[in-house]
Amino acid sequence: MSRFWSPFVKDLVPYVPGEQPRVENLVKLNTNENPYGPSPRVIEAIRAELNDSLRLYPAPNADTLKAAIADHYGVEPSQVFVGNGSDEVLAHVFHGLFQHGRPLLFPDITYSFYPVYCGLYGIQGQPVPLAEDFTLRVEDYRQPNGGIIFPNPNAPTGVLLGLEQVEAIVAANPESVVVVDEAYIDFGGETAISLVGRYDNLLVTQTLSKSRSLAGLRVGLAVGHADLIEALERIKNSFNSYPLDRLAIVGAVAAFEDHDWFEQTRQAVIASRQRLTAELAELGFDVLPSAANFIFARHPQHDAATLAQGLREHKVIVRHFRAARIEQFLRITIGNEAQNKALLAALRELLAD
Amino acid sequence: MSRFWSPFVKDLVPYVPGEQPRVENLVKLNTNENPYGPSPRVIEAIRAELNDSLRLYPAPNADTLKAAIADHYGVEPSQVFVGNGSDEVLAHVFHGLFQHGRPLLFPDITYSFYPVYCGLYGIQGQPVPLAEDFTLRVEDYRQPNGGIIFPNPNAPTGVLLGLEQVEAIVAANPESVVVVDEAYIDFGGETAISLVGRYDNLLVTQTLSKSRSLAGLRVGLAVGHADLIEALERIKNSFNSYPLDRLAIVGAVAAFEDHDWFEQTRQAVIASRQRLTAELAELGFDVLPSAANFIFARHPQHDAATLAQGLREHKVIVRHFRAARIEQFLRITIGNEAQNKALLAALRELLAD
Repeated sequence: MSRFWSPFVKDLVPYVPGEQPRVENLVKLNTNENPYGPSPRVIEAIRAELNDSLRLYPAPNADTLKAAIADHYGVEPSQVFVGNGSDEVLAHVFHGLFQHGRPLLFPDITYSFYPVYCGLYGIQGQPVPLAEDFTLRVEDYRQPNGGIIFPNPNAPTGVLLGLEQVEAIVAANPESVVVVDEAYIDFGGETAISLVGRYDNLLVTQTLSKSRSLAGLRVGLAVGHADLIEALERIKNSFNSYPLDRLAIVGAVAAFEDHDWFEQTRQAVIASRQRLTAELAELGFDVLPSAANFIFARHPQHDAATLAQGLREHKVIVRHFRAARIEQFLRITIGNEAQNKALLAALRELLAD
Repeated sequence: MSRFWSPFVKDLVPYVPGEQPRVENLVKLNTNENPYGPSPRVIEAIRAELNDSLRLYPAPNADTLKAAIADHYGVEPSQVFVGNGSDEVLAHVFHGLFQHGRPLLFPDITYSFYPVYCGLYGIQGQPVPLAEDFTLRVEDYRQPNGGIIFPNPNAPTGVLLGLEQVEAIVAANPESVVVVDEAYIDFGGETAISLVGRYDNLLVTQTLSKSRSLAGLRVGLAVGHADLIEALERIKNSFNSYPLDRLAIVGAVAAFEDHDWFEQTRQAVIASRQRLTAELAELGFDVLPSAANFIFARHPQHDAATLAQGLREHKVIVRHFRAARIEQFLRITIGNEAQNKALLAALRELLAD
């Protein structure tokens, strides 16, 4: 605390990301990274841009990337916003679209960055309890609000809300912006981008960090009505003219162009998830149905914090949240075959103790 | 305008960056990029990081980069903040250190992003007129304020304030944060980072976009008392956990490690500036004394807007600001020898017309 701080800073409770340990030979299943690398075409595209042109500013509006995304989803470039990871996109969303003096609704168990953004921008967040089975009840989102946001599939549960139910929430709230945070949608859900032409209050956010294996490059996006995008552009242009660097722009474009790689790697993750789910069930775990690249699981006879600590001693890192309702769960990223095997072997030892 | 926007958005007046035309064979002297490319060691370092590890998140605190900067300037890593370009760093500074309900002082002629940040964060900005010769008068900064910010050398004038005068402003305002925006300091000034150990209210910002030829990579930094840095970290960690991507981190580290390249290229720019200043004076221009990688010049007999347009027709782009007191000036980035020659040849033709 310092007398120089803007008053709100002392009350900020920052987000805590999963750790990024700099240790070799760790089975890292704690931050939902893709076990497969990015498309070789991404690497090639960045290599081709890796020259003296780095002395020049990037295109401030990343037009080539907006065009690639618009093309991929069949929308107009004016309906696309891009940012330095979907976290930056979400920050601008909270700042530019959620300050209405009415409570912002989001699930009680959800991406833990949402309440942090509320603190940053002075927004009153109102958590809405999920059902006992961690599903989102559409009827709970028919109450006065200044905006609605939820991940789909939800984090850290992995539970998917069907597209019809997403639409029901959007349709029931014509006076509020409804943001569907689709960080994990490519691993088993259907994107709501198909609805943006029909609803001027719907904004869909996505990231290249998960299904496009580019967590290290920091690219996120939003798709919605051009009026919503314009608010984000105004904020962005009042914050940082060039949020995406030259390498990120060409890498992200290449990622959208290599459809085969995208398809092949996401199907591999989905297949691994199905196998891992079955194997964990065999070990006695309750595994929530996941449409993401992670699973959320608890063991009726074993304390989650103890298991997480035990796994760490076996050099396997998963994520454990000390939070109400979910403190007995582990969030486990889907790894490659070797990583999943190492996880299962460690768990077998721990459960046998 | 849309009913969904947060109320402040409709009044935002975004910053307008210099254009980044995608045209070949343009002599681009409009956005103060370095005419020389980055160190070959930067390219090498990025190439070595360009692999499957892009699937993994970057180090959220960019510790290796903070260590390199701390080492370079002889400070502690806890005194260093890094961000996605110095514009992002400045945005966090305005948000986290300047919201005190008292006016923020900055020169009337200065970096035009400052009033934009004021609009974004609801800060009352109070422009303080520069002297007739565009120098900053220390005594004008002895009035009640909620913070002070100025570039040194100033933009778009290039005029330098000596380190003693910088210190006088910092010493005269012990209850306010004084931010010295040193985007161009390496081209002829002395950094105020040497003072941060003695003043807990001093924060110095810098960028790798200019003297390190990395505008395309987006890396900026701040150095100051650890308490000031902590405010910035709290904002950053409530905004975006990973503002610097993996490639930017390793590239920026390499830029700080190649001292010879840095020294050689900045001396080349300084020498070019001296030659170009003399040549423009010969053509009848009044050139302000510049300590930056650009010069600010007017011609007593020729209208600046007309000259700028004429240069554009000769495929030379410079920056012209339609703003009070400076509408008869051109801001011209120091190019390489060929670019400077093209500029002079075009000007000779225009002046002869």
